[in-house]
Amino acid sequence: MFHCDVDTGIDMTSPSRMKNAADRRQHQSWPQRCRRSNMLILVGVALCTLVSVCDATDTDIALDAKATLNHRIQSLDLLVFVFLLALTVLTIWLFKHHRVSWLHETGLAVIYGLIVGAIIRYAGTSATLVHMQVEPQGVPTYSDKVPPDTLWFNYPVNQTNGTKVPEGIKTYAYVFRGQVHDVDENEIDLKATFDPEVFFNIILPPIIFYAGYSLKKKYFFRNLGAILTFAIVGTTLSAFLVGGFMYGCVKLMPKYLSSSFSFLDTLYFGALISPTDPLTILAIFNDLRVDVNLYALVLGESVLNDAVAIVLSGAIQNYGEHYSNTGEFETTAFLRSLSDFFSIFILSLMIGAAMGCLTALMTKFTRVRDFPLLESALFVLMSYSTFLLAEATQLTGVVAVLFCGICQAHYTYNNLSEDSRQRTKQIFELLNFLAENFIFSYIGVSMFTFPKHHFDAGFIITAFICAAIGRAVNVYPLSWLLNIKRKPKISANFQHMLFFAGLRGAMSFALAIRNTVSDARQTMLTATSLIVIFTVVIQGGAANFLLNWLKIPVGVDDETEQLNNYQVHSSDGYLQDVESGAGGHGKMRLSGGTESNMDTPADGPNGSLGGPSGGRRRNSHEKAILARIWGNFDTKYMKPMLTHSRPTLLETLPVCCNPIARLLTTTQQLTQDGSEFRRVDSDSDICIDNDTGNGLSQDVGPGTGPGVGRRNSLSRMEILEHVQSPVSTRIRLLGFYGKKL
Amino acid sequence: MFHCDVDTGIDMTSPSRMKNAADRRQHQSWPQRCRRSNMLILVGVALCTLVSVCDATDTDIALDAKATLNHRIQSLDLLVFVFLLALTVLTIWLFKHHRVSWLHETGLAVIYGLIVGAIIRYAGTSATLVHMQVEPQGVPTYSDKVPPDTLWFNYPVNQTNGTKVPEGIKTYAYVFRGQVHDVDENEIDLKATFDPEVFFNIILPPIIFYAGYSLKKKYFFRNLGAILTFAIVGTTLSAFLVGGFMYGCVKLMPKYLSSSFSFLDTLYFGALISPTDPLTILAIFNDLRVDVNLYALVLGESVLNDAVAIVLSGAIQNYGEHYSNTGEFETTAFLRSLSDFFSIFILSLMIGAAMGCLTALMTKFTRVRDFPLLESALFVLMSYSTFLLAEATQLTGVVAVLFCGICQAHYTYNNLSEDSRQRTKQIFELLNFLAENFIFSYIGVSMFTFPKHHFDAGFIITAFICAAIGRAVNVYPLSWLLNIKRKPKISANFQHMLFFAGLRGAMSFALAIRNTVSDARQTMLTATSLIVIFTVVIQGGAANFLLNWLKIPVGVDDETEQLNNYQVHSSDGYLQDVESGAGGHGKMRLSGGTESNMDTPADGPNGSLGGPSGGRRRNSHEKAILARIWGNFDTKYMKPMLTHSRPTLLETLPVCCNPIARLLTTTQQLTQDGSEFRRVDSDSDICIDNDTGNGLSQDVGPGTGPGVGRRNSLSRMEILEHVQSPVSTRIRLLGFYGKKL
Repeated sequence: MFHCDVDTGIDMTSPSRMKNAADRRQHQSWPQRCRRSNMLILVGVALCTLVSVCDATDTDIALDAKATLNHRIQSLDLLVFVFLLALTVLTIWLFKHHRVSWLHETGLAVIYGLIVGAIIRYAGTSATLVHMQVEPQGVPTYSDKVPPDTLWFNYPVNQTNGTKVPEGIKTYAYVFRGQVHDVDENEIDLKATFDPEVFFNIILPPIIFYAGYSLKKKYFFRNLGAILTFAIVGTTLSAFLVGGFMYGCVKLMPKYLSSSFSFLDTLYFGALISPTDPLTILAIFNDLRVDVNLYALVLGESVLNDAVAIVLSGAIQNYGEHYSNTGEFETTAFLRSLSDFFSIFILSLMIGAAMGCLTALMTKFTRVRDFPLLESALFVLMSYSTFLLAEATQLTGVVAVLFCGICQAHYTYNNLSEDSRQRTKQIFELLNFLAENFIFSYIGVSMFTFPKHHFDAGFIITAFICAAIGRAVNVYPLSWLLNIKRKPKISANFQHMLFFAGLRGAMSFALAIRNTVSDARQTMLTATSLIVIFTVVIQGGAANFLLNWLKIPVGVDDETEQLNNYQVHSSDGYLQDVESGAGGHGKMRLSGGTESNMDTPADGPNGSLGGPSGGRRRNSHEKAILARIWGNFDTKYMKPMLTHSRPTLLETLPVCCNPIARLLTTTQQLTQDGSEFRRVDSDSDICIDNDTGNGLSQDVGPGTGPGVGRRNSLSRMEILEHVQSPVSTRIRLLGFYGKKL
Repeated sequence: MFHCDVDTGIDMTSPSRMKNAADRRQHQSWPQRCRRSNMLILVGVALCTLVSVCDATDTDIALDAKATLNHRIQSLDLLVFVFLLALTVLTIWLFKHHRVSWLHETGLAVIYGLIVGAIIRYAGTSATLVHMQVEPQGVPTYSDKVPPDTLWFNYPVNQTNGTKVPEGIKTYAYVFRGQVHDVDENEIDLKATFDPEVFFNIILPPIIFYAGYSLKKKYFFRNLGAILTFAIVGTTLSAFLVGGFMYGCVKLMPKYLSSSFSFLDTLYFGALISPTDPLTILAIFNDLRVDVNLYALVLGESVLNDAVAIVLSGAIQNYGEHYSNTGEFETTAFLRSLSDFFSIFILSLMIGAAMGCLTALMTKFTRVRDFPLLESALFVLMSYSTFLLAEATQLTGVVAVLFCGICQAHYTYNNLSEDSRQRTKQIFELLNFLAENFIFSYIGVSMFTFPKHHFDAGFIITAFICAAIGRAVNVYPLSWLLNIKRKPKISANFQHMLFFAGLRGAMSFALAIRNTVSDARQTMLTATSLIVIFTVVIQGGAANFLLNWLKIPVGVDDETEQLNNYQVHSSDGYLQDVESGAGGHGKMRLSGGTESNMDTPADGPNGSLGGPSGGRRRNSHEKAILARIWGNFDTKYMKPMLTHSRPTLLETLPVCCNPIARLLTTTQQLTQDGSEFRRVDSDSDICIDNDTGNGLSQDVGPGTGPGVGRRNSLSRMEILEHVQSPVSTRIRLLGFYGKKL
């Protein structure tokens, strides 16, 4: 029964900004918010006047007002970010419109974030939390090893009718939050800060999924060796080197700093600062149409090293907290961490891949594609459940989602209806865009508002230097190693560009902000934030000029590859070459580029002659053996099972497995016509190329003759790189299309 | 410094399921999760064995394990829902595939939810929260009116090496949660329950926005009078009647129940049970292609009455908690609540509309449409910020978002690029689908898992009866009233269908679950859940048969209107009529249907002769005066200002305002050609009709002659309904197109 006429008992002397105010509001009513809007906006401190016989006490009303205020502040905080993003969007448009190249969207988001953060910091009033030290009522019985989940606290509810005589006692519940490490920490105002776990559970998954979903698989697989080397070996190497350097440097610093850092701390810093962010640099590469292999290297590396870094940092923390007695090196502890690293990485990978394949099976064997909305919903739900499944089984959701994305693009995408392809691509593109810009805005804002920054100039400078060294160690020695075997060598200029493309971004920041308990961690967060801001704004802005300066070919058609170093060194001549050949043959590659998917077992590894620029026998060493085996397996078993592609399992499986093969082969697969065939065929460039799959038929013709203009370089590359017999396949394919047309 | 070799000190005797475990994990490390996965899965109780010199105590490790477990449980809970949704999607597809009509998707989601809820309830183990009563340390000084935000609690950290001697004290922070109303309530297990505010802040906004965005505006505005009457008058009437009936009935019930209900409680119940849910019924209407006016009535009413109900329930609660002394009727308190109701509704409406218009201006005056991704992002951000802005100013975000959606569809949509139109439509369609199915799944699951259900058969039966009476009171008397003035009368069969279409859904449930403090509220929640489940499953399933039984014409083309009662009564003959006329003239309506938007001031209200089926002078009473004024204003000022439509403001504003008019008129507007013109023209059916705007030019020709077949009925309707002179406009338009073609 609600009856009360106490009017405006709002006490705003200690408005708190707790995250779970929404929880509290369950117990409180909604409409008060509406009534007091103006009051609350105008004043923080309110008057308490009218009193009468009343169930709802002053305390109730004050609590209610507080909850209301909390909800408003939360809404406002979010609103600030949403407006910031809208502003960023408009400015990006303006920049694109006026072709401004010295500042890119992520840099813009960071700068706006910094400005807004400064405003929030210096304009708003500071709000502190009120806390009270309590002890158990009566004789304490600490029967449990852990502190209780909730505390019940009797608080005297006083009707403030001037006399402050408590008229009753109410019991309030308090929920466990965590250990108090620093008595002062809760006093700092908590403006516009989000729970760091938001980044791992909400912001990163769509970004990482989209990275996997839009990975340009052909070039990715073609450079798989280099990418894996850079991502796994390089990132680990960089992490350990940065960790070691930092440890050495920190120990030379003043006592208060050096004592707070253990080697594991600096190693953790090494792991979190090693992953590179593809965002800004790839936006530039995309705008400028930079060489596709460079693009693939940078993208592939930065996508995978995010996954490596998150697992690596986890393993390092595990080592410190569970395996090692002393924090020093111990062989068993090290090996256990190592096995953690690999098992978590591989299990996460497998969960991701399995869920991707499951989605592919679902979309293959149902006709859900007749209802694109249902299909898209299924796709989104399955992808999200991958993340949850990995988290629920205590693996790394982000890694699982990455490989799920790759599988979805590789298999499921082929089964989707045209509408769903568009829709899923567009949805994840938008989500990715929003999430990325949000995280970069937040990096900017949090520089001013996050309460746990710890500035230390010495550490920051050292961190900058070490980050650069770590990147150099990643790129140059590994490139040299790779160049021993690799035929299209990674030229020096490409190496410089790879070094320079090592921007730090979302993953580094997310890992740094995840744990800010100790002084060391807070110092690391500050250094990481600054490194991210610097690299994104300055390096991102300068990338354009550097590309020019390093004479890295830009304006290159997607179809053309330029990793070929003799061409890079004569890029001027090459560009002429490109321009002279910019005819209508661009699409022909399709029949060549994806042929590894179309290989029938009969073709085998014996490449035969023919094709665009005259046949040149390929050297089988030029494709990684692993990639080759996988490609073969994929074409023979995975694709036929998971998509409507041909050859069917009936052709590839041994005869004894025919019943199973029949079960896994759809009628569509057996009866598909040329158009279906082409559709499946075009998957290697999905998600980035919108225009593949059409125009194929027109352009096939010229490809059979000797290549002209830029086709030359492409064909040369393809012939150099592919070991399987695409040429004979191509001829077969052309014959196939020829019949259809 | 992390060094510790205590192995597996996991104590699972009291695993809690707190919502903000993620918060806690900020202070805890991530990787332990990875290590202990199997342990945690297999056992809940763990062994504590190895001890050594160690900073990290058993308590730390146990806490950490608990946080990890919480995170896993959260992930699992979400995973259950995501899988449930995926299952629903697959089953929906199966049903659609096999044309099952007796169960619809929302019903399916509810049923699956019930099954899963039962499994969770009876299969899982029960986990309870441990709580401890505390009191302030030392002499309490209750200086503040509100209890403190956080409690700091010293807990002895015991190294459980068998002796349980505390080796230290750690301080833990506890965050305020809310009042403890019921000592037992926290003991109930909290399986798979979400914070009710999630519904208002995450689930409802996209549903309501999409309802606004996809509102079929032409039919909506044509039936505006009826819709507003049903939505505002009807819902309020129904709320008060249900409230009154329920109060009477409850007072006849056993003492324990009747004493817990005040009149305001039952009134609140009336307000929350009155809004109808469009979802299931409209899905059926859509599948069957039911008459568009019936569709518009049901959709329009259910969209608006959600908004009315949320504001109304807020006002009722305000009345109870702040304005009234006694809980009985008081004139001043009533008037204040009334003013609350209107001011909140209107202010929310205005914020929503203003943000929609702002987006329209942004998209009109920038060329952001050159970059569809940016444009879509801007659209989404602006729409979301509407919700946040309304919440931050203590208005109702849901209402604001509804009107924002209407404005976005009415104005902004016209300025968007084709890509963005598709994308925004598809994104919100998907979000809406997922949110709706989630909420219905949750209704099912929560029947078993939500801890605050209170079953009372008497109340539930009464509630069912009252809900039906409330709906009847809404439909029949108001239809009778409307039919006095309304020319295309709402026939008896249509009224029965309207009555039957009163399914309860998301909004009722969300309002009921928002406040479950008292016994009365818990009883209401249970009754509401059951009403929602019953109406969605049973009424939704039977709708198909009833449509048949009531002889309501189905299979009607979108273009044809059937509210005309003489035609309804001879629907067989009518259907022949439709079939015979199902030629290629369907699109002609466009030039007639949207003409009110195209009226120039010169046309005025004097309808002239001519047009498809011979001119019949319209009766100006047949269109609501308000709608007419608004239509005129919209065409003359709003559309030219906010979109690229013509006439431009230069033509419509007085001469003295020319400078402003010039500023607000784009070059595109002045120089646009026919295709642009058509594009703008086609907005009246956006979002639902995908095919408007094309085919217009071909079909205009026949329309100028006497109408044939189904065109007859349409033209008749149009001439009856429209008061502005569309005929002359149409002729002008046709001339315009004629020139262009």
